[in-house]
Amino acid sequence: MSQLSWGSRLRSAIADRGRLCVGIDPHPSLLRAWGLPETAGGVETFAEICVEAFVGDVALVKPQVAFFEAYGSAGYAVLERTISVVRAAGTLVIADAKRGDIGSTMAAYSQAWLGEDVPLASDAVTVSPYLGFGALEPAVELATEHGRGLFVLARTSNPEGGQLQAAQLDAAELSGVSAGKGVSVAQSIVDAAVAQNRDGRDTVGLVVGATRGHGLDLSEFSGPILAPGLGAQGATVADLAEIFRDSRELLLPNTSRDVLRHGPSVSALREAAERVRDDVENGLA
Amino acid sequence: MSQLSWGSRLRSAIADRGRLCVGIDPHPSLLRAWGLPETAGGVETFAEICVEAFVGDVALVKPQVAFFEAYGSAGYAVLERTISVVRAAGTLVIADAKRGDIGSTMAAYSQAWLGEDVPLASDAVTVSPYLGFGALEPAVELATEHGRGLFVLARTSNPEGGQLQAAQLDAAELSGVSAGKGVSVAQSIVDAAVAQNRDGRDTVGLVVGATRGHGLDLSEFSGPILAPGLGAQGATVADLAEIFRDSRELLLPNTSRDVLRHGPSVSALREAAERVRDDVENGLA
Repeated sequence: MSQLSWGSRLRSAIADRGRLCVGIDPHPSLLRAWGLPETAGGVETFAEICVEAFVGDVALVKPQVAFFEAYGSAGYAVLERTISVVRAAGTLVIADAKRGDIGSTMAAYSQAWLGEDVPLASDAVTVSPYLGFGALEPAVELATEHGRGLFVLARTSNPEGGQLQAAQLDAAELSGVSAGKGVSVAQSIVDAAVAQNRDGRDTVGLVVGATRGHGLDLSEFSGPILAPGLGAQGATVADLAEIFRDSRELLLPNTSRDVLRHGPSVSALREAAERVRDDVENGLA
Repeated sequence: MSQLSWGSRLRSAIADRGRLCVGIDPHPSLLRAWGLPETAGGVETFAEICVEAFVGDVALVKPQVAFFEAYGSAGYAVLERTISVVRAAGTLVIADAKRGDIGSTMAAYSQAWLGEDVPLASDAVTVSPYLGFGALEPAVELATEHGRGLFVLARTSNPEGGQLQAAQLDAAELSGVSAGKGVSVAQSIVDAAVAQNRDGRDTVGLVVGATRGHGLDLSEFSGPILAPGLGAQGATVADLAEIFRDSRELLLPNTSRDVLRHGPSVSALREAAERVRDDVENGLA
């Protein structure tokens, strides 16, 4: 097992460079706005600009895997180079992949993103729990062993997600992690993460949209929370302070479009990232 | 819009070569059993053997994306070649990727797997609805336009998935697709697929594990059902006939390990696939 837990690594990174996580999202409309072709080559230039702008200035970056996968193996080759350059510079990488499967297939996804000496090796990966929190076990194990992290989708900010994530678990079937009656799907993910993190390593983080009324009880959860929605999606830093008042130590606000729209100028991107980073630090102090 | 719907293409393929879908799962333990290295090169040889064995003999193959992704861009290059060779030979490819995200990110995943002239272009892709069935809309649109399909995770056969998939939606919030009280998450996916397929194109399929007691009402669903679990996971053809008695026209039983364990002999793999294919045809006639 790695000397340092994911939680310790995060605390140290936050102390050095703040808690903002900036997205690397080579969206087709951003490629066009930056004057880049919608090809793997365009994605590569986009990613190189992001690396130059953000590495060293923020603690974490989050490449959105879909925008690389759209170009197949050529896009993945760009993603591999991006991840390894960022990590070599000491900035943490959260691969936003939202993977989720069962058994040996989940083990293969875990190996892909959290293995040692693999081309896509990242510091953390986002995962999706439709097949059950328990199905994510191979990823939890590998992350724990290597001092890396997971971010499990819990409550997302998109309107289409509310119905499923608010569905109520059958209280009679609950296996001890949630004693209460009428626990929602999203709350059951929070509760399972609380139970998993009792080892003190904070391996299991959550994805919780920075929107009011998420309806979650986060009072027992002290692990990492990746909170998309800052800026372009409408949440302010004051909203974050209010929404996550119970669980702020490892809160990682994420912004993507609101910073990326300042490209392709490296200096404009860096200034935008620093401005949001400092706003977050001041607002959540 | 493509002349042929996904449903028409499936019916035609099933009429020609049966309804069995064989997995291409270059699992580490299978690579070892076949005497292949656990590298992208080993995966390539594995996939080439599968292609030689199955193409022309079965209607559909299903590469498990995780086992290629574990080798990064090199694994994806193998996956691209595998998919395009299989499709060029007229066999349908279901990419088992279980992708799921929102908005423009979901659009990028859709483009990656269901776009035209993209390296990973497949006939269908599996998707995960934790972010809501509605969040899959970009994939539904693209698949509909191109005569391709989706398979949305509904009720999986793994024990860890039961609690979430059986959780009950708030009846007051149901938006008309399910009028009944106490609709489960999994049933809500079925109901949304029924509504989507009213255009007669059968674009939206379901993944339903071939296990008894899935608890779903499939009586109104006549679209494609991908049913893993045949063979190695314990389900027999007789079980399938019973479990899916309401919705058998586009039922696609999937087997992977139970056929793949006969490799690396091409003839042994082909014989195993033909045996299961014929058992399925006889048992579901």
